[in-house]
Amino acid sequence: MIRAFPLLLFAALAVLAASRASAEEGMWTFDNFPTSQVEQQLGVHLDQAWLDHLEGASVRLTTGCSAAVVSRDGLALTNQHCVVECAQQLSNPAADYVRGGYLTDTRSEERACPAMQAEVLLGVTDVTVPILNATVGKLGEDYTAAHKGAVSAAEKAVCGDDPALRCQVIGFFSGSQYKVYKYHRYDDVRLVFSPEFSVAFFGGDLDNFTFPRFALDCAFLRLYEHGKPAKTPDFLSWSSAPPVAGEAVFVSGNPSGANRSLTVAELEDLRDIRMPIDELQRSELRGRLLQFSDESPEHQRIAADALFAEENAFKATYGRQLALNDAPFMAARVREEAELKARVAADASLALEIGDPWNDIAQLRTVYAAQYIVWRQLEAAAGGQSKLYLYARDLVRGAAERARPSDLRLPEFDDSRLPLIEKTLFDPQPIEPALERLYLQFWLAKTREYLGADSLAVTAFLGKESPQALAARLVDGSRLADPAVRRALWEGGMGALIASRDPMITFVLKTDPVSRAARTLWDNEVAGPIERADQKIARARASLFGAALYPDATFSLRLSYGKVEPPPGRDGQAGPFTTIAGLYARATDAEPFQLPPRWLAARARLDPATVLDFSTTNDITGGNSGSPVVDAKGDVEGAIFDGNLASIAGDFAYNGVLGRSVAVSTAAITEALTKVYGRAGLVKELEAR
Amino acid sequence: MIRAFPLLLFAALAVLAASRASAEEGMWTFDNFPTSQVEQQLGVHLDQAWLDHLEGASVRLTTGCSAAVVSRDGLALTNQHCVVECAQQLSNPAADYVRGGYLTDTRSEERACPAMQAEVLLGVTDVTVPILNATVGKLGEDYTAAHKGAVSAAEKAVCGDDPALRCQVIGFFSGSQYKVYKYHRYDDVRLVFSPEFSVAFFGGDLDNFTFPRFALDCAFLRLYEHGKPAKTPDFLSWSSAPPVAGEAVFVSGNPSGANRSLTVAELEDLRDIRMPIDELQRSELRGRLLQFSDESPEHQRIAADALFAEENAFKATYGRQLALNDAPFMAARVREEAELKARVAADASLALEIGDPWNDIAQLRTVYAAQYIVWRQLEAAAGGQSKLYLYARDLVRGAAERARPSDLRLPEFDDSRLPLIEKTLFDPQPIEPALERLYLQFWLAKTREYLGADSLAVTAFLGKESPQALAARLVDGSRLADPAVRRALWEGGMGALIASRDPMITFVLKTDPVSRAARTLWDNEVAGPIERADQKIARARASLFGAALYPDATFSLRLSYGKVEPPPGRDGQAGPFTTIAGLYARATDAEPFQLPPRWLAARARLDPATVLDFSTTNDITGGNSGSPVVDAKGDVEGAIFDGNLASIAGDFAYNGVLGRSVAVSTAAITEALTKVYGRAGLVKELEAR
Repeated sequence: MIRAFPLLLFAALAVLAASRASAEEGMWTFDNFPTSQVEQQLGVHLDQAWLDHLEGASVRLTTGCSAAVVSRDGLALTNQHCVVECAQQLSNPAADYVRGGYLTDTRSEERACPAMQAEVLLGVTDVTVPILNATVGKLGEDYTAAHKGAVSAAEKAVCGDDPALRCQVIGFFSGSQYKVYKYHRYDDVRLVFSPEFSVAFFGGDLDNFTFPRFALDCAFLRLYEHGKPAKTPDFLSWSSAPPVAGEAVFVSGNPSGANRSLTVAELEDLRDIRMPIDELQRSELRGRLLQFSDESPEHQRIAADALFAEENAFKATYGRQLALNDAPFMAARVREEAELKARVAADASLALEIGDPWNDIAQLRTVYAAQYIVWRQLEAAAGGQSKLYLYARDLVRGAAERARPSDLRLPEFDDSRLPLIEKTLFDPQPIEPALERLYLQFWLAKTREYLGADSLAVTAFLGKESPQALAARLVDGSRLADPAVRRALWEGGMGALIASRDPMITFVLKTDPVSRAARTLWDNEVAGPIERADQKIARARASLFGAALYPDATFSLRLSYGKVEPPPGRDGQAGPFTTIAGLYARATDAEPFQLPPRWLAARARLDPATVLDFSTTNDITGGNSGSPVVDAKGDVEGAIFDGNLASIAGDFAYNGVLGRSVAVSTAAITEALTKVYGRAGLVKELEAR
Repeated sequence: MIRAFPLLLFAALAVLAASRASAEEGMWTFDNFPTSQVEQQLGVHLDQAWLDHLEGASVRLTTGCSAAVVSRDGLALTNQHCVVECAQQLSNPAADYVRGGYLTDTRSEERACPAMQAEVLLGVTDVTVPILNATVGKLGEDYTAAHKGAVSAAEKAVCGDDPALRCQVIGFFSGSQYKVYKYHRYDDVRLVFSPEFSVAFFGGDLDNFTFPRFALDCAFLRLYEHGKPAKTPDFLSWSSAPPVAGEAVFVSGNPSGANRSLTVAELEDLRDIRMPIDELQRSELRGRLLQFSDESPEHQRIAADALFAEENAFKATYGRQLALNDAPFMAARVREEAELKARVAADASLALEIGDPWNDIAQLRTVYAAQYIVWRQLEAAAGGQSKLYLYARDLVRGAAERARPSDLRLPEFDDSRLPLIEKTLFDPQPIEPALERLYLQFWLAKTREYLGADSLAVTAFLGKESPQALAARLVDGSRLADPAVRRALWEGGMGALIASRDPMITFVLKTDPVSRAARTLWDNEVAGPIERADQKIARARASLFGAALYPDATFSLRLSYGKVEPPPGRDGQAGPFTTIAGLYARATDAEPFQLPPRWLAARARLDPATVLDFSTTNDITGGNSGSPVVDAKGDVEGAIFDGNLASIAGDFAYNGVLGRSVAVSTAAITEALTKVYGRAGLVKELEAR
């Protein structure tokens, strides 16, 4: 599942530099889409109206996914795995909407997803010149403040104070280009339809990142505004006809995981330092969650989304490690890098301007190896996934940061980001103490294990308490599960926090200086220097290759083109498709191949030949989950929900030979809504033009 | 903890080739001990009587540890972590001898450890010539049969049919030298004394593989023969005086983990293929066991040894990975290998004889990468650590193998090994169904995950059942927990097995052909070719360096020399020591720093200055746990129980600069026996000459 992976951990590596495009490669911005290249390769002519129509119906979900509006009443198609967290949050011991599905029958049953916002792009303004000019001749903190000041000013100039808008300056090509993305923001996003986990994620972790695939990984949300279904700038027509093998298809979404311009040294840092630690810890946490889930049906219910998220991230990282451990893959990267260096060396003024940024990064390896685990445990992965901890940290940091001007704050507390933080804090959602304790205990235990029981940092976090005892004390004593308590502390600011006796608040007040120190050290000694070196390489690429480039993924709107095509070895007309018949053939009476009762009962009614899932050559990555797959007419034929294991290495380089995207077809969704779920009203809404 | 790690997984890599000795490096056989070198370096003269005395008191435990006889009544000193499995087996819900310690007061309370044998070396006979002659001109299966026939004949010639003896042919230097090791075998080994887990493993996983260290990791066993305390060939005098900084010390034990003659390609296979998979799976299992232990005190009790074993193996492998990911370390290995190749190339006849075995190994990488996981899941790690599965496999394979002559069997069913297999099958020991299910489910789930749900092998193992359901069915329906049932099936042979309706037996009968096929494939295509290449390299080394070499570890008796010396950075007289005062200073009221009640009560009575643990430069590795540390007089001053993290990389190369062995002092043991445990009788026995 290609939901955007935890952004925090990858943020420092989400470099924005460029890569040369080839074949059907490319995550193109709508304002630089290679229409003539597409016409040449696929024989399809796309005009500006076609592009505007698709852009106006494309949705970014702040939870790390994409979606598309598919009705005039703000109905949005996405994946079940993009709403599973919402379904989990709406559930309780008596109603398990993950397992049983969330199947509304009327609009009054549609319920808001906590902490979820939807954004539709309204326009793009180039602000490269003012942003770059603002920092000329400045260094260090002056540079940072000037840059952030210019960013804030650019955002303000476009959006003003309109609360319905969100403006975000996005840096492309490692900050050699800056644009303001103006979004319409929808704060009220409600869950309409989400099928049962066992059919949405049929085949489970085993089938994840493979094709052929048999999963109905779809869901519907509805965007609301002022309490009413929203009228979005545009919406896509719903195709109930199946896709055709070889057909040209287009994917509009928000890729976020790609790191295609990493240097060889950066890839080695990932391969040798970061990924092994991440995977080992994730693996142990996975074991804990699996055992926890086996303990009781209620534990299974409350840990369902958590377990899915860990297994998904584990397998995706595993796939990427396979690429990095593949000698030919790395040899190709070494060769490309040598070629780029040679071209730079051949251009005396360019060489003088950028120096040797590849070596600058390679020289950082020792400090990277020493500091990564410190930064990870104390800052990037602090708190595990404890929601109470994260609430407390948002409250504590929020109070400190809001006291400063926006351009001097930690970036995540910029004015443009505060509404989402407030929504996250104020929206009610269930807190599961057993899971909270598990996460906190695990994080504290690993921190002690990796940093050492006698380290100053660990002493500051744990004192003489054990991870287990501290986790229990913090969770059992905290009242932060109550949204009213959180709101009061947010509004009360630092004074209210210092006066609070909530143990989680006290803990974060005490330990946050240690976390911040680890972050500063990492930023100053590792992430910052690497970012500056990456910018130099991006400047070199821009100078050498110009506009024939697409920027690396930034979780902003992109369009990719491709064909309906199977992976190699699966030929014939059936190659790129699976059918509902195949789903039933694969079913057993045990998870993850067990169909829900509704599906067992509906078997005779369904057309077995209906195309369920299909594979395409489109270039996608994390964040593209839920992206609409549209045909040459612009009608939606499916929703991307996955890529095969070779496509996962697409994080580092597009692989048009082996890598494939995987989508669920609108034909299957229509068939299921009609004959399994009896949701004729929804189908009618989808088919209305 | 340097208990020998699961031999099965490492067996194929336990190559027996040689390495050049330097500084205090060396795991020397007693018949090639460099006495003049020792005299030169340490100023200590050791004569043959001194060596014979130590050899006659040294013990090999079949559970993977070493020990030393320290009284005329067969009392043997070893580590608590070498008997923790025994203490676990003797425990029950009402009596937890791991947590509470096993503290006998009279000999009648001493209880036999299930499946444990002790062996004392009586003599060594060189059989290189007949063993090598037997295979001249033979290839393939003929070679194997001729080799095994000659081995069996050599063992028989030395030991005859005396059931008190065990003869084992051991190949040194990758099979360029063969010797018969004749042991006195003690089948009846009883637990005498084992302190509480929390003081024996004080600091737990956090302090494991570190120094300074504060652990009373000692235990006493007693060897019995014909129901009476055994009279062993010799025993060591007990020193209650503490060791002195800088003093020469000697360690006699059975190292088993070292792989010092691996080629660079073999190290890369370990680093890039084997270790990552092993550690990821172990990490997940660890998470499961931790969560399982948290579920209830009874789960904590039954999983104590299991969790310790996984955490210990995890940290040891992690330490080794650090070495293999260390660029200077690997660069040194590359350099050494290039030098060796150059010397071979300079010797035309040697070069002609051996060819390019380094390249032969490197060429196997692709097949290694493809087959390792298959062999691991279906054969090497099959069954997880389910005892019921392993019983069933011993029964099924034993019946098939015993029907053939000894020299045509799988090596683990040789005549010389059958007594231990029978003892393992016939000794009663508790079976914990919850833990059995956990292990089996985990193994089946990982097998399906890594090999794919649709692979033929997985289909053969699982059919349409889920890992969870199959594990429950096999464990809940099996009667193999009853030793009488196992004995009847062993004696009934294949007929009884085929007639059995025990689901575990049925499962192994059905799946064993798949496991055997995976083993054959691995042996023929990977392990065998690597072994032959290693033998060629060993011949080259022997030809170039001759007798100045010690053989790689073979879990047979070795002697190392060194000094009582701290790791760098811990200087002064206190450098190599910790004291009982330090133990109390480090204690908190939470595991793993919580002292048992007896220790809290005894504090005022104990001499705080007593040396608890000490560090030395001796060259040790896995299997050396429990080895006596003796002074120049031959008196025992302590028992090795650990090495620091740098010494763990000693698996690949001795590191005299950073690596240190860690021992518990006899002085502390005496103090504790007297003042904490009130075991004056035991002290009297130890101090009798």
